[in-house]
Amino acid sequence: MIQSVAFIGLGAMGYRMAAHLPQHFDTVYVWNRNFEKAKQHATEYGTQAVELAQAVQADVIFSCLPTSKDVEELIASVKIKSGSIWVDCTSGVPESAKNLATQLKLHNIDFLDAPVSGQTIGAETATLTIMVGGESAAFEKALPAMQAFGKLIKHVGGSGAGFSVKAVNNMLLAVNLCSVAEGFTALKAHGVNLHEALDCINASSGKSGVTETVLPQRILNRSFPLTFALPLLAKDTGIALDLVREAKLSAPVIALTQSLIQASSDLSEKDSDFSSAVKMYESWSKITIE
Amino acid sequence: MIQSVAFIGLGAMGYRMAAHLPQHFDTVYVWNRNFEKAKQHATEYGTQAVELAQAVQADVIFSCLPTSKDVEELIASVKIKSGSIWVDCTSGVPESAKNLATQLKLHNIDFLDAPVSGQTIGAETATLTIMVGGESAAFEKALPAMQAFGKLIKHVGGSGAGFSVKAVNNMLLAVNLCSVAEGFTALKAHGVNLHEALDCINASSGKSGVTETVLPQRILNRSFPLTFALPLLAKDTGIALDLVREAKLSAPVIALTQSLIQASSDLSEKDSDFSSAVKMYESWSKITIE
Amino acid sequence: MIQSVAFIGLGAMGYRMAAHLPQHFDTVYVWNRNFEKAKQHATEYGTQAVELAQAVQADVIFSCLPTSKDVEELIASVKIKSGSIWVDCTSGVPESAKNLATQLKLHNIDFLDAPVSGQTIGAETATLTIMVGGESAAFEKALPAMQAFGKLIKHVGGSGAGFSVKAVNNMLLAVNLCSVAEGFTALKAHGVNLHEALDCINASSGKSGVTETVLPQRILNRSFPLTFALPLLAKDTGIALDLVREAKLSAPVIALTQSLIQASSDLSEKDSDFSSAVKMYESWSKITIE
Amino acid sequence: MIQSVAFIGLGAMGYRMAAHLPQHFDTVYVWNRNFEKAKQHATEYGTQAVELAQAVQADVIFSCLPTSKDVEELIASVKIKSGSIWVDCTSGVPESAKNLATQLKLHNIDFLDAPVSGQTIGAETATLTIMVGGESAAFEKALPAMQAFGKLIKHVGGSGAGFSVKAVNNMLLAVNLCSVAEGFTALKAHGVNLHEALDCINASSGKSGVTETVLPQRILNRSFPLTFALPLLAKDTGIALDLVREAKLSAPVIALTQSLIQASSDLSEKDSDFSSAVKMYESWSKITIE
Repeated sequence: MIQSVAFIGLGAMGYRMAAHLPQHFDTVYVWNRNFEKAKQHATEYGTQAVELAQAVQADVIFSCLPTSKDVEELIASVKIKSGSIWVDCTSGVPESAKNLATQLKLHNIDFLDAPVSGQTIGAETATLTIMVGGESAAFEKALPAMQAFGKLIKHVGGSGAGFSVKAVNNMLLAVNLCSVAEGFTALKAHGVNLHEALDCINASSGKSGVTETVLPQRILNRSFPLTFALPLLAKDTGIALDLVREAKLSAPVIALTQSLIQASSDLSEKDSDFSSAVKMYESWSKITIE
Repeated sequence: MIQSVAFIGLGAMGYRMAAHLPQHFDTVYVWNRNFEKAKQHATEYGTQAVELAQAVQADVIFSCLPTSKDVEELIASVKIKSGSIWVDCTSGVPESAKNLATQLKLHNIDFLDAPVSGQTIGAETATLTIMVGGESAAFEKALPAMQAFGKLIKHVGGSGAGFSVKAVNNMLLAVNLCSVAEGFTALKAHGVNLHEALDCINASSGKSGVTETVLPQRILNRSFPLTFALPLLAKDTGIALDLVREAKLSAPVIALTQSLIQASSDLSEKDSDFSSAVKMYESWSKITIE
Repeated sequence: MIQSVAFIGLGAMGYRMAAHLPQHFDTVYVWNRNFEKAKQHATEYGTQAVELAQAVQADVIFSCLPTSKDVEELIASVKIKSGSIWVDCTSGVPESAKNLATQLKLHNIDFLDAPVSGQTIGAETATLTIMVGGESAAFEKALPAMQAFGKLIKHVGGSGAGFSVKAVNNMLLAVNLCSVAEGFTALKAHGVNLHEALDCINASSGKSGVTETVLPQRILNRSFPLTFALPLLAKDTGIALDLVREAKLSAPVIALTQSLIQASSDLSEKDSDFSSAVKMYESWSKITIE
Repeated sequence: MIQSVAFIGLGAMGYRMAAHLPQHFDTVYVWNRNFEKAKQHATEYGTQAVELAQAVQADVIFSCLPTSKDVEELIASVKIKSGSIWVDCTSGVPESAKNLATQLKLHNIDFLDAPVSGQTIGAETATLTIMVGGESAAFEKALPAMQAFGKLIKHVGGSGAGFSVKAVNNMLLAVNLCSVAEGFTALKAHGVNLHEALDCINASSGKSGVTETVLPQRILNRSFPLTFALPLLAKDTGIALDLVREAKLSAPVIALTQSLIQASSDLSEKDSDFSSAVKMYESWSKITIE
């Protein structure tokens, strides 16, 4: 039985995810590097803003940080309660998950890699998808805590499997971003009405998350709202490519897409939304996708 | 007012599409190269199996053939009624549509390129999507006839625009086929449960028509049912790449995907379903996507 | 026996190529759209600046124009002497060569596609390489005229074969330009001395025309002298890709390179040397290859 | 002054490289995992076959093994003489070189990454190219030993720089292998004489090490002699791609080529020469490059 939970990393996602925990658990610790955020969360949602050393004494400890490196450094800096489960919701590196799981196991701590999808709206409405890697027993034990903010929660394999699925998902997003940019630029060059074309494609076999939501809600209306930064997508495509490389596989579309997203990220302002990857294509063709 | 319609080309799609016409029009001619098919259609649906010369005397003439070249040869061989509208439902070549439209206009005949999507099930239930290129007036006049088997019917631009949208749609399908094959091979190599992973991705930003239907219904269950032949998908990706080339655009993902689909088509049996494009990846990795 | 030769198109290459003809033939006509150039050539080299109608009365007629389209238009506008041989040194389109050869044959005129390599210095020193497509008999008859400015002169196949070889050569140049830019950017990012690295590579298996001459003479010294315009290289890579497409082959590296050169051409000033294709990579990485 | 040298790893390259050392140094130790090879070398060239523990007491210790991992394991297993210089001629991993250099420095040992090019013929004639990474002082001290078998010997940068240059060189080789296979398949599909085409290209801007030697000596004559195994080329392209990834660069041609070489390696017999990478293309097109 989970008595206490902690949430470490109160960014755009974490802040909203942690907000659901007090409805299910009596003791909910929160911690954030910028500690004002933690105190604000405590005031707003009835969580307890505590020092990191105390946070890691919870039965289930969630983390949601920018990269696996951040998680590694944080874990290296604390003494975690024996018997606890660390659930890392970062979009992280599979290899890192394997290493952390092995290392923490020596101290009788379980590590689950449990990245989420569903964006801030999903975090707010507790309808996130969670793809979890790690041992089955730990998954079962941590499940009630994950259910506080997740809807579809799947145990996809051993350590690193959750991060792997997230990386592949984001890679598929990236591939669609590039190919839709290419295809719609070509359609516009040939005088096709993009809005009508989009309606047709969304009723056909070429549709994707990008054609259904990203293209109409972020690109065609030229809004590019920052909810997921392009450099982070570049990082995730890199994780996907590393998966391919480690297994000595051949994945030409993934390899090429990683290069293209990297180039478009390098060309963009730092705080660009992932959807602005299409602007590299627009600079090539002098055609605006609108 | 449309008094008579004709349907030329009673393949898997055309046969089902033409079946709806008698409910809306008194005079419905059908013609097929293998004429037995036409006679069978007449018996089954109350259409009239007539000679080609008579079919092209209808007010609206539909065609649904393998390639634009077939349509060009057929049109060159007949004398079409002045004032009629030719609605070509082939997945054809934009450049060919422009040429046919210009040429037929000299004889007071309109030409619409009107490829469909929705597969045989959509043809059966009259819920096809139709993406139409050509003049607005002709589109408006032919619309009631197209409504016999279409549900979402969009006028996407001038001559060739319909074919262009279909080609881009099929290219996006091809891109997803390749990238999903690459991503899921990598996931399996890392011990991930593909079925659970698929559930997660279908609830996330990387989803597509391929992850939602092709992967579960054709690939993971190893059925590869032939409904759309791989060489035809290779042809369509070629049409999309030609669109890019004609506009002197840069579309690396489209260009690469065309090569990959061409290679997988060259390696496959002639009657392979488009979904069997993944088998090239499986032969590289010795990993079966199941 | 060749009594008279003509040279049409006195650009940077043609002007120098035609200069050698008077040493070998008594009657040498020259013509250029900007006719002043022709008159200047006559003064400088003892050729005869004549009207186009007279030029095409020569036994062997050379042309060297920007594109096959220019050649087609020019040929369509004149009445060429029966029994003559038209030798087109343009970097042209194989399909166009086939069509022109067939069409001119009806008027008892031979057409050879005979693009050259060796740049202006090769034209000046009469050491050009000439790759010739067309009928053997015509090749043999025209050989003495081609020897006036060519050194290595090869009959590589039927009509279009010469243009095909030139297109593939230029595609290989483009591939090396891109991969060298990628590789040397990476080396510099890792602190490697590029000049020493280049010496090693030029003594190793990775060497190419690009590493041996283009990189040291145009890129590392930041000179980018205009001798062959980047848009023309983009055109030639397109011809190579069309060759692949017509034969329904799969050529992923060619397809990708065509896209990259097209993008770098679209991003460049119109009068950029082909070597400035590397600048697209430099804009991505903020690393200068020097 | 170098009094003693050792050579560890007497493979096809190492055996020939070590053969030149006795002409320049009085004490030359050799060691090989299969020790019979070492004894044979001693008999043949007057070297001393010694135990590994003694070999690493030399002033300069050369190694030439399949991968960096082999070198790391070997170094971890021995106590190397303080003040010595380890010169690793393996085609290795830059990151590994940096780690080994740092680690050995703690024991007052210098490490140079010094991969070679020139194949077995270059090893035999002592005309190898050596690209060296590491500290200048160590380079200067080890230079006389390297001159025993090297001709062009360049200090290209700090630790890892030598391996980086070798990886990029081999990547360029791989790129040319793929693009030449694509281009020559296309030429043959269009009826071009490949031997004449090759002569033209080798006199033009598209030439490369592949067109000048690999294509005529290994592919067109269908000999594919095993001198450098395809899986090793796949490994080296992976090292090059890792260089790109570590620097967060975009290198689409390198990324794609890595995938293609990996696929062709996966499809090949284990002991295939690198030149047999073209056979993947031949299986796609059913065209033999001959």
